[in-house]
Amino acid sequence: MIETPYLLFLGDAPDMLAAKVAIGIRDWRPENAVGQIRLDGCGADLGLTDMTLAAAREAGAKTLVIGVANRGGVISAAWKEVLIEALQMGYDLAAGLHNLLRDEGDLVAAAQTYGGTLHDVRVPTVGYPIANGVKRSGKRCLAVGTDCSVGKMYTAMAMERDMAERGMKTTFRATGQTGILITGHGVPLDAVVADFMAGSIEYLTPDNDDDHWDMIEGQGSLFHVSYSGVTMALIHGGQPDALILCHEPTRAHMRGLPGYTLPSLEQLRDTALPLAQVANPECKVVGISVNTQHMTEDDARSYLSEVSSRMGLPATDPYRFGSDVLVDALIAL
Amino acid sequence: MIETPYLLFLGDAPDMLAAKVAIGIRDWRPENAVGQIRLDGCGADLGLTDMTLAAAREAGAKTLVIGVANRGGVISAAWKEVLIEALQMGYDLAAGLHNLLRDEGDLVAAAQTYGGTLHDVRVPTVGYPIANGVKRSGKRCLAVGTDCSVGKMYTAMAMERDMAERGMKTTFRATGQTGILITGHGVPLDAVVADFMAGSIEYLTPDNDDDHWDMIEGQGSLFHVSYSGVTMALIHGGQPDALILCHEPTRAHMRGLPGYTLPSLEQLRDTALPLAQVANPECKVVGISVNTQHMTEDDARSYLSEVSSRMGLPATDPYRFGSDVLVDALIAL
Repeated sequence: MIETPYLLFLGDAPDMLAAKVAIGIRDWRPENAVGQIRLDGCGADLGLTDMTLAAAREAGAKTLVIGVANRGGVISAAWKEVLIEALQMGYDLAAGLHNLLRDEGDLVAAAQTYGGTLHDVRVPTVGYPIANGVKRSGKRCLAVGTDCSVGKMYTAMAMERDMAERGMKTTFRATGQTGILITGHGVPLDAVVADFMAGSIEYLTPDNDDDHWDMIEGQGSLFHVSYSGVTMALIHGGQPDALILCHEPTRAHMRGLPGYTLPSLEQLRDTALPLAQVANPECKVVGISVNTQHMTEDDARSYLSEVSSRMGLPATDPYRFGSDVLVDALIAL
Repeated sequence: MIETPYLLFLGDAPDMLAAKVAIGIRDWRPENAVGQIRLDGCGADLGLTDMTLAAAREAGAKTLVIGVANRGGVISAAWKEVLIEALQMGYDLAAGLHNLLRDEGDLVAAAQTYGGTLHDVRVPTVGYPIANGVKRSGKRCLAVGTDCSVGKMYTAMAMERDMAERGMKTTFRATGQTGILITGHGVPLDAVVADFMAGSIEYLTPDNDDDHWDMIEGQGSLFHVSYSGVTMALIHGGQPDALILCHEPTRAHMRGLPGYTLPSLEQLRDTALPLAQVANPECKVVGISVNTQHMTEDDARSYLSEVSSRMGLPATDPYRFGSDVLVDALIAL
């Protein structure tokens, strides 16, 4: 559990692409961010108030979140100065960097001296159980994709927000570092040891009220040979009642895998649903989420309409057009 | 790589059930075992020559392999005495215990003093890559099961032996601790971090001669919710050209999962084959391996004949009746 609210550290990020984590926090948990702090030459700007460490601390910030990727896997001297000063002021630090905060002797020393906590969200800190497959109470929805990075996290986030606005009981369950930093808790599934993957998801989505929906963040794809095992564990550990199919129609090949074409939404449905029904025989595919960011609005709307009638399911781009039709489908279950 | 040949340590194993690893070595790599060493009260007997550490060393033994499970997760004082004496004599130690040899200070000290190596085969020692899905040369066969522990390892081992006897080029590729201890090398897949699972299998089964067959040890089952992610990674990382379907017909429910029934062999075929074809479009299901240990010979033969004609595939219990029909099917591919 990472203490909120945050001050978002953008460092010397060259551009907005490097600030994915910080953007996610601003977009999905704006109440978690009191402001941003940037170094000279920073090319990223979240549009939040630029604050000093001291001013943000006064505004209530508990954790300095490193919301950017660092260059070349090195935490630079310029970053270190700010991070150590933050620890001196009583901040915790949180990051999803490849190189860990805990491997930096000066940060560890400062954290010990001033009583701060270093959160490396890539690293599991819980001894997860082996999955037991026992049916849990409450409802669960999982987004599965034709490929990696097609909008599974944004789909679950958008649906959770719209469900909460309707007064429904719902919790976004993060399974990746960005989701964990955005919400402050979750399971870094890609770093969990193989035997405990499905068990970590059972742990993440425990028994709940019968009318409560866990919106589980998807990972990878059953059709992505590098990460399909992670997706499989999510499907079986998550015991979803509802699957959302996610797709990005303009992609030429599977992400990072030239020569591998994307499956159709029909193939995804016909592969994922029977596997999900092993763990939850009642599971249904309830809708389709399309990432239309590379399409004009006209093209996007006509694509969604075609897909929806072809597959007999509601279809939307939840980020662009809202997730209402997907939430309606969950309610209709 | 664990140095062979071995002396097999049976300790104070209460019975043969506790000696699974040692039995596997005796059955599949008898040339790797110069003999067995037992403590007072040992109820297991492999039928190998009982030897002292000194006699086995003279007979060429390089590694003392702990071929039994220990009780209560503790390496007892009685075991320690033998293990430390072995290190003093120049042996390496190898084990697949839950508690690691490397976590025992006295063993670490003795290993350092006498120059021995402690092999904990449950722990990966290689930095595996992320799978890249690039097609590799050579042929690969993978056994997939309706459940865990239905004979996938024995199927691959039996086929490898029969193929070698026919003069075919073949290598058993171990993916679990028993297989690794039997052959001296492999990937402990269930202990690999999620993101690297498929990559570890690509690493395990590299490019090879066009007429060489890697016989990859299967793990888990696509239908076993605790471990299906591991199976999925094997299917995509392994890029198999041939799948063998494995089944145990007398089981009442999935291993360790009351309430979960086993799928049919047809379901296994229809689930595993399309997933395997994502990584290798040429993949075929070539045969069926049935574990008939709980059936009479008559029942076994009539079951195999029924399954074979129903599914149009050769079917055998490779341990009981030989694997020839499966090897013929590989050759016919």
